[in-house]
Amino acid sequence: MRSSSHSGDRAESPDCAQADKQNSDHCHSNNALYIVGTGPGSQAHMSGRALEVLGFVDIVVGYKTYLEIIAPVIRDKRTHATGMTREVDRVEAAIEAALNGQSCALVSGGDPGVYAMAGLALEILANRGIACNTGAENSLKIEVVPGIPALCAGAALLGAPLTHDFAAISLSDLLTPWDLIEKRMDAAALADFVIVIYNPKSKKRDWQLEKARDIILRHRPGNTPVGIVTGAMRENQRIQLCFLEGLHLMEVDMQSIVFIGNSSTFSCGNLMITPRGYSKKYAI
Amino acid sequence: MRSSSHSGDRAESPDCAQADKQNSDHCHSNNALYIVGTGPGSQAHMSGRALEVLGFVDIVVGYKTYLEIIAPVIRDKRTHATGMTREVDRVEAAIEAALNGQSCALVSGGDPGVYAMAGLALEILANRGIACNTGAENSLKIEVVPGIPALCAGAALLGAPLTHDFAAISLSDLLTPWDLIEKRMDAAALADFVIVIYNPKSKKRDWQLEKARDIILRHRPGNTPVGIVTGAMRENQRIQLCFLEGLHLMEVDMQSIVFIGNSSTFSCGNLMITPRGYSKKYAI
Repeated sequence: MRSSSHSGDRAESPDCAQADKQNSDHCHSNNALYIVGTGPGSQAHMSGRALEVLGFVDIVVGYKTYLEIIAPVIRDKRTHATGMTREVDRVEAAIEAALNGQSCALVSGGDPGVYAMAGLALEILANRGIACNTGAENSLKIEVVPGIPALCAGAALLGAPLTHDFAAISLSDLLTPWDLIEKRMDAAALADFVIVIYNPKSKKRDWQLEKARDIILRHRPGNTPVGIVTGAMRENQRIQLCFLEGLHLMEVDMQSIVFIGNSSTFSCGNLMITPRGYSKKYAI
Repeated sequence: MRSSSHSGDRAESPDCAQADKQNSDHCHSNNALYIVGTGPGSQAHMSGRALEVLGFVDIVVGYKTYLEIIAPVIRDKRTHATGMTREVDRVEAAIEAALNGQSCALVSGGDPGVYAMAGLALEILANRGIACNTGAENSLKIEVVPGIPALCAGAALLGAPLTHDFAAISLSDLLTPWDLIEKRMDAAALADFVIVIYNPKSKKRDWQLEKARDIILRHRPGNTPVGIVTGAMRENQRIQLCFLEGLHLMEVDMQSIVFIGNSSTFSCGNLMITPRGYSKKYAI
């Protein structure tokens, strides 16, 4: 069911309903699957559209930790929660609910498209040949509701580490061969990208971050600024700054995201700043 | 004034007020500069915190097109608008207002930290030695309010093109040497990143996108899926899908963002999906 057909221009295609739905759907709708980003943590950083969707759906499906974070928003709504690494189960439960005539929100922390649930949900729908947004009677309505990703929340708390070109790399080798992760880390370091590291460390994966540091040190000096944000916009929020050479000594866990500066990044007081280049052209 | 001092751990540092302010400041405050991301376009995709800040500040400073987009939010509030490429003027006006005892929101479309105003504002403050968030009488209060970046808004409209590692590269060579942009594009293509291209084309910059395509074609086949989103969540929203070999023929402008798939990315109907690798481990 992996089609390579291209429509050329979706905006004028009659079967492309997502764009219209994005702005027009303010109430309950059956056979609908909303893949919703709940942002970094606090309700203050959720979008109006995410709040709206969570208000009108029949059921909310998600990782139990994220459902706890948004409990004040969804209150007594019906939920389906599973634990970590149960992503396939969550997607299947959400699709089943939508196919059974309900409206369902499948939630992700951050943005649902960045290392989160949108990819898996759409991949499973594609594999099973389930029609989406065609308007036909048995078609599912799909809307991906974006959220503020951890990389933006973390960057905001650090100042402005991302202002120039950056690469996002997950250190989780559960689904990705480590060789490929190493290759990407090396290429990103070589080409002087700011590097945002997702999933830097867990209880079971404890050596990858130091290895990543060693790879980057081939291309950048030990005093390159590094920022670590853990639990952004949550009660356990913690912000640390260090140099690249000391990264392996910092407190990092699965709620952390790590920002490695490029050759222009500097720190000033408690801030981490990557200039975009205005000082080369203007007197600032 | 470029200091390389590091605090080690900001969360326990008494002079680091940003984290606390992030959640506690619900009303007017003098000498305050809020660097606010207004998201992709429609008010529905702004965060509650961004709306709150725009509600209580004395003055809103921004690029005139963005101020027009958020006009329903800021209504009769005092504004200071300038045209494109006048970023330094905007930052100076915002800093001046805050130093003069006002509270000021400096707005960016999308997220203020991704190719936007947070970097320049903090760089200028650092260069001028203006103290931020120290709590001292003459110190400015700074808060970066994150927003949904164009890369997440565009990805949501395309489906899930970003679900695995990605690199964001701006094709604007106004502030960045073209050689460096080429080097980054080549490295990102070689290491099989999904590539998000910001500022792909303008009236004055019309050859860079085709050159980028040629670089990526060294490493990827011509039938690699590409998505182009223009004016995401705005009235002029337009979504196009094509193959890499035909990218140079598509309609692209300064409001467009271009997503180049990696070796796993596929299209299905009107969607563009980058799997994260679940199919290698699970029956999906």
